[in-house]
Amino acid sequence: MLTALKEAVLQANLELPRQGLVKYTWGNVSARDEETGFVVIKPSGIPYEAMRAEDMVVCDLSGKVVEGRWRPSSDTPTHLILYKTFPEIGGIVHTHSPEATAWAQAGMDIPLYGTTHADHFAGPVPCARPLTDEEIAGEYELNTGLVMIQTIRERGINVLHVPAMLCFSHGAFAWGRDSAQAVTNAGVLEEVAKIALKTRLIHPGVQPAADAIRDKHFLRKHGVNAYYGQEAAK
Amino acid sequence: MLTALKEAVLQANLELPRQGLVKYTWGNVSARDEETGFVVIKPSGIPYEAMRAEDMVVCDLSGKVVEGRWRPSSDTPTHLILYKTFPEIGGIVHTHSPEATAWAQAGMDIPLYGTTHADHFAGPVPCARPLTDEEIAGEYELNTGLVMIQTIRERGINVLHVPAMLCFSHGAFAWGRDSAQAVTNAGVLEEVAKIALKTRLIHPGVQPAADAIRDKHFLRKHGVNAYYGQEAAK
Amino acid sequence: MLTALKEAVLQANLELPRQGLVKYTWGNVSARDEETGFVVIKPSGIPYEAMRAEDMVVCDLSGKVVEGRWRPSSDTPTHLILYKTFPEIGGIVHTHSPEATAWAQAGMDIPLYGTTHADHFAGPVPCARPLTDEEIAGEYELNTGLVMIQTIRERGINVLHVPAMLCFSHGAFAWGRDSAQAVTNAGVLEEVAKIALKTRLIHPGVQPAADAIRDKHFLRKHGVNAYYGQEAAK
Amino acid sequence: MLTALKEAVLQANLELPRQGLVKYTWGNVSARDEETGFVVIKPSGIPYEAMRAEDMVVCDLSGKVVEGRWRPSSDTPTHLILYKTFPEIGGIVHTHSPEATAWAQAGMDIPLYGTTHADHFAGPVPCARPLTDEEIAGEYELNTGLVMIQTIRERGINVLHVPAMLCFSHGAFAWGRDSAQAVTNAGVLEEVAKIALKTRLIHPGVQPAADAIRDKHFLRKHGVNAYYGQEAAK
Repeated sequence: MLTALKEAVLQANLELPRQGLVKYTWGNVSARDEETGFVVIKPSGIPYEAMRAEDMVVCDLSGKVVEGRWRPSSDTPTHLILYKTFPEIGGIVHTHSPEATAWAQAGMDIPLYGTTHADHFAGPVPCARPLTDEEIAGEYELNTGLVMIQTIRERGINVLHVPAMLCFSHGAFAWGRDSAQAVTNAGVLEEVAKIALKTRLIHPGVQPAADAIRDKHFLRKHGVNAYYGQEAAK
Repeated sequence: MLTALKEAVLQANLELPRQGLVKYTWGNVSARDEETGFVVIKPSGIPYEAMRAEDMVVCDLSGKVVEGRWRPSSDTPTHLILYKTFPEIGGIVHTHSPEATAWAQAGMDIPLYGTTHADHFAGPVPCARPLTDEEIAGEYELNTGLVMIQTIRERGINVLHVPAMLCFSHGAFAWGRDSAQAVTNAGVLEEVAKIALKTRLIHPGVQPAADAIRDKHFLRKHGVNAYYGQEAAK
Repeated sequence: MLTALKEAVLQANLELPRQGLVKYTWGNVSARDEETGFVVIKPSGIPYEAMRAEDMVVCDLSGKVVEGRWRPSSDTPTHLILYKTFPEIGGIVHTHSPEATAWAQAGMDIPLYGTTHADHFAGPVPCARPLTDEEIAGEYELNTGLVMIQTIRERGINVLHVPAMLCFSHGAFAWGRDSAQAVTNAGVLEEVAKIALKTRLIHPGVQPAADAIRDKHFLRKHGVNAYYGQEAAK
Repeated sequence: MLTALKEAVLQANLELPRQGLVKYTWGNVSARDEETGFVVIKPSGIPYEAMRAEDMVVCDLSGKVVEGRWRPSSDTPTHLILYKTFPEIGGIVHTHSPEATAWAQAGMDIPLYGTTHADHFAGPVPCARPLTDEEIAGEYELNTGLVMIQTIRERGINVLHVPAMLCFSHGAFAWGRDSAQAVTNAGVLEEVAKIALKTRLIHPGVQPAADAIRDKHFLRKHGVNAYYGQEAAK
């Protein structure tokens, strides 16, 4: 069942330690199957080096395991509520990658300081508000997703234009049209977070890049008039 | 004698340079044999690349070498007093891993800034007080352990809930139920120390994470109601 | 056509990820053929691991593609205006290497703090002024080059003595007599940028190195009285 | 001639890029032959990957090349004056390793903040004073060594107890009884420099470690009562 998607999700998960985005079993990737709507996700707490495609867990959007001998990632409810809310998202990744996590622990958005950022994210990478004690005591993983969705709504964010978010005191989520794109966005996020900290250390009073440079670079790579790469503008 | 445990301690020692936790011969791992109470520990000053299982030294808890042709690590008395005091500890590691050592040199606890920390340590990683000149001039390595034990007692720490400590002006110790878990905890400590410094550089006035998020994450992975991984809650 | 130069440009491009100067498809290298005046450049958005020499694109200085089945790098107009303006330049590289990019995002020159810098760059690495909104909305990549040229003119820079520049809110360009030298200069720039930030973190009020040490080291390696290496002073 | 020593010097030079202490052709190692007093040193500006033992240059202490088809390192006069002044030194290394160089560019000693430092260096790693314009215009490399020697004399340093020094606005020298020990000391210096910066970033007002801990750790590894390693105290 969903053999190709399981293989894609496995490869996306394995890419995380290769890119230096996770240590140990921290982090997980999922993908949604367009036809069935089922979600394929990494099992909980299984070492990366031992994982095979058949270890991936298949759930429906309510969280019921449809296939798989392992328990799905404990973060599954966060993934599912994002898929349910945003049909345009086809892959999601969660990491504690150190540079992005430092911004999440600082409780701050990553400002858009330059074109490396703007080439991939059309604005600051937001940090969601802290969960209340009630939200933590309740359905914690679901509420983690709901607070992210609240942030997206309140800020009027297009989720494919800013495909990443920081969770306060916690870590990072990134997403995309499929699991491979989600992992790339998680890698870009980590690089952008790293350069942003160095930027502030060089010049503590630095201001975000101008709107014109932000729009120029984002639209050079994305949208109907994009002219970067070989596919654009065809 | 204790062939399997020697192999485990060798592998745990070799994991240290692989994880970037030690350079040269800095650092050492030991484990306690449950049945005999003997401790297997790395020999002093032997390069990692040349070590074999039969080079590991077996001591009793008084420090007498029971088997082995090398002298044990010069830090052996620190390991032994921890084993004597805390029967629940089965493996101990000492490193000068750079991120943790920076906090030890700064003489500061590593605050619990987020869930990466809370997933593994139920509170700040404490920095023990400096040794007095008399403690240094006397049985230095034993006193290093006694000051750590004093810190654990005074703060009411459960050693398996906060399985690591910083030694003022010195480096880090971590432990666990066995030597493999001790090395994992040393690796987590290094990652947590790294992210904590970055967090402070982004936001110098950052506050520790809320108690609710700390307890949620620690208990999600540990204790009777844990639901992370495949073994939990079975 | 230009088979040897295509191979050189391919190898120069492949050196970028090897040296840690680019991630994904960020960055590009070009070279000018002395005889024909044609420029060989990386195609746009092609993954490094899949590129072959025959994928390199050949343009004339007006930007017309002379040979090649791919579109050239979207940064081609920046490369071309630099070649047109400075006949002594034979190779150009553009990167978002993180240390140099942090200085570009901070909008600051990299001061000449020591001999590592002076061995390769005879003065600070300048950060060009921000482009105006009109320059961004117009021929953006061409204007990026024109603003760099304005900086070089206004500061009276010899482009082979300071073979690198930062673009405000963006990234780095480096160049040299050929594409291999350009890539080396991009690698030196990244190392110099990294050490410069660390220098300021140790001593926020640090001043640039003395002119005498700057001139001594630059001229030890460059110019008619150079005595570093095996070729010098022959 | 001196075949074994040339091989040792080659291996010591090759260890520099392996340990991350040099990029490109920056850095050089030499050793003195006890019997003849000749010095074997790396040739100037030769890429590390292509060097063979027979490329090493043999000089006498006056700088005359005794054997070898290449020019010796341009830093040879600095090495030679150190050998002439300190008969106990048998190997010398010069690097621009980034962490140590940042302290040199900041013009500051590396304070002894902890036992990682004290295990290898019995006090702060000094930064020599800047050379005067006359010293730079004159015999620059010789004067670089003379200023280091002045620093050693004025501070009453035992060169085997503090086997490293920073050169203002420049880089690092380290030494030892032979070239292998010199390279190890250069590697320790880099690690100590890295941890020292992190220490100050965590706690800007941090004070050096207590004298008692400094002496305890240095003497635990060095001197007649050393008890670290397998050779000590035999």
